[in-house]
Amino acid sequence: MIAHARATSPMYSRRLTKPDGRKLWLYGRAPIAPDIVAPAPEGMTVPPNPHLRWHPLRGEWVTYAGHRQDRTFLPPPDYDPLAPTTDPSSPTEVPAGEWDVAVFENRFPTLHAAAHTPPASYVATLPATGQCEVVVYTQAAQGALGALPLWHVEMVVRVWTERTRALSARNDIEYVMPFENRGVEVGVTLPHPHGQLYGYPFVPPIPARELLIQRRHYERAGRGLVEAIVRDEHREGSRIVHTERHAVAFVPAFARWAYEVWVLPVRACPSLLDLDDLELHDFARTLKVVLMKLDALWDQPMPYVMAVHQAPVDGGKHPEAHLHIEIYPALRMKKRLKYLAGSELGAGAFTADTSPEEKAAELRGIEVRVE
Amino acid sequence: MIAHARATSPMYSRRLTKPDGRKLWLYGRAPIAPDIVAPAPEGMTVPPNPHLRWHPLRGEWVTYAGHRQDRTFLPPPDYDPLAPTTDPSSPTEVPAGEWDVAVFENRFPTLHAAAHTPPASYVATLPATGQCEVVVYTQAAQGALGALPLWHVEMVVRVWTERTRALSARNDIEYVMPFENRGVEVGVTLPHPHGQLYGYPFVPPIPARELLIQRRHYERAGRGLVEAIVRDEHREGSRIVHTERHAVAFVPAFARWAYEVWVLPVRACPSLLDLDDLELHDFARTLKVVLMKLDALWDQPMPYVMAVHQAPVDGGKHPEAHLHIEIYPALRMKKRLKYLAGSELGAGAFTADTSPEEKAAELRGIEVRVE
Repeated sequence: MIAHARATSPMYSRRLTKPDGRKLWLYGRAPIAPDIVAPAPEGMTVPPNPHLRWHPLRGEWVTYAGHRQDRTFLPPPDYDPLAPTTDPSSPTEVPAGEWDVAVFENRFPTLHAAAHTPPASYVATLPATGQCEVVVYTQAAQGALGALPLWHVEMVVRVWTERTRALSARNDIEYVMPFENRGVEVGVTLPHPHGQLYGYPFVPPIPARELLIQRRHYERAGRGLVEAIVRDEHREGSRIVHTERHAVAFVPAFARWAYEVWVLPVRACPSLLDLDDLELHDFARTLKVVLMKLDALWDQPMPYVMAVHQAPVDGGKHPEAHLHIEIYPALRMKKRLKYLAGSELGAGAFTADTSPEEKAAELRGIEVRVE
Repeated sequence: MIAHARATSPMYSRRLTKPDGRKLWLYGRAPIAPDIVAPAPEGMTVPPNPHLRWHPLRGEWVTYAGHRQDRTFLPPPDYDPLAPTTDPSSPTEVPAGEWDVAVFENRFPTLHAAAHTPPASYVATLPATGQCEVVVYTQAAQGALGALPLWHVEMVVRVWTERTRALSARNDIEYVMPFENRGVEVGVTLPHPHGQLYGYPFVPPIPARELLIQRRHYERAGRGLVEAIVRDEHREGSRIVHTERHAVAFVPAFARWAYEVWVLPVRACPSLLDLDDLELHDFARTLKVVLMKLDALWDQPMPYVMAVHQAPVDGGKHPEAHLHIEIYPALRMKKRLKYLAGSELGAGAFTADTSPEEKAAELRGIEVRVE
């Protein structure tokens, strides 16, 4: 366990502005060159003006972002907007130069700080303020988050943390969720390893529901609900996928997806901002191990949706919250997608065809090398 | 409007038992022959024993039905288990003979009355009691619900009503939801026009949420929330897709899917059981018109999930409920699927790329002939 105790390596960063006004942040182990310039792809950038409408029966906001309908889908293989710009006549979203992780404001955001004057209707409407960012995991056009070296995965987690911190200062943002959509099965438009990060102007329905239940538990028990789940998963043991001193991964007893895995710090850290260096290291390591296992399972990239759930940044205290990553692999068997259909979409009632214990045992049995 | 006032044609039915013990119900305009015999496909039928586990963070039940993993997927084109049995050596799920609509207990149910002894864990577990039924819309192996003659669509609605009535008498069932998954895009395993019907042992999360909000509104306003929505949609007008005297279809102001359409009676009928003959007729007609418009939009079958939301059958009074069908077409443009990814699945926050007013105008502009 000695290796876990090493000091975290430094992370340098630099904030740039693109020709079209969007912000770009570069992060690296080495200082970012001061003369680096932020590029932007050419073409019309329609000023985004998304709006929210209240769904009165579900009690949730729906976002309308009309301009997104025309966004690029599977661009020609010779153009990767997330690769460093090498030909100035064909600019991408990120510059050449020495950096390891980049973040920029999405060109086709569903939430935007400048949103204004929503249309009027009998349901409440609001400007869809907030922030949509793209997190470029690496300069390499191919690969995977889990396949990056451990220091690099750790840097991605630290970038999520930095962006959470920065967005928490904004009045129009109440919740920050880093996430990744991976694979054509979940509709990704670019193969370049990347994730996203949304700063929502409201606490979205699923975290809101989880937090409400956590708060009730905390007020009753004086301790966190997820802390109890971690303890119970350790005790029962049959669904543990990987453990480090300060982090753990398991297929929860109540998994909705066949290979659903949760990755979380053992201590009840409400958000990324609460992780100390050792916890962040173990958290990143556990995430890497899980992602490697998912890809090793059938020796092919596992399509998934990955969402980071943490405390809201609404100014309140959230001792009830417990940072955790929920990974939803889209396949229930090799080559067999789990479809969301009538029961899931129409009733909200999930059906699993598999047992969490069996799937956890499968993943636990896969050996991976962490470097 | 004279045609709408005609008396509803009679519907005959007969209940049969399959060789493997499952029930089969046949419905028709003509009396069902008394000597008709219920077939069942051959092969092992594992006694189903699904169970529920409580998801403590979302506060909902998840169903585990292990045997389903191996269920038939896209059987060879020469075998249609929903077509009438013509060769006794290759039995299907329904007999030859004169009938129009058939319902049978699903061979691979996720909910089953005989479920028992769930495994123990730190989360609550229960037997996954309830009922899963397949609703065969027609004897024809090809076609669509919307393409059936109006009397036939009306019969399907009446069959939903009859099954809701029958299942409401069971103690292990609290909610009945007829639904249809249509198209390979939403994972249908059989092209034969059919839907399903689940009798849940609990009120599932989405109807539960809708009903809670409706109840609060009803207690405050003394009238239904959906009744108010219907009035407001009529008043604003821009999202109406079709109207009859007693039923209406619109893309709601808060649609989450591009071509989402709701079909509902104008009067606040809590469930299918509350429709009178004229209302049922107009409701079926409106449903047929909407389904025809969706298929005519791009001159191809529109993949969709369709869910019928109604009052629970939990023994309580539900004046707050208002029967409505929610149709979620899977395409947001021709050949472009709407993917549910990080924001939708991880946060519960839906993003629409299109405007409900534009999509409603598109559908409204499509002329269809109802016969």
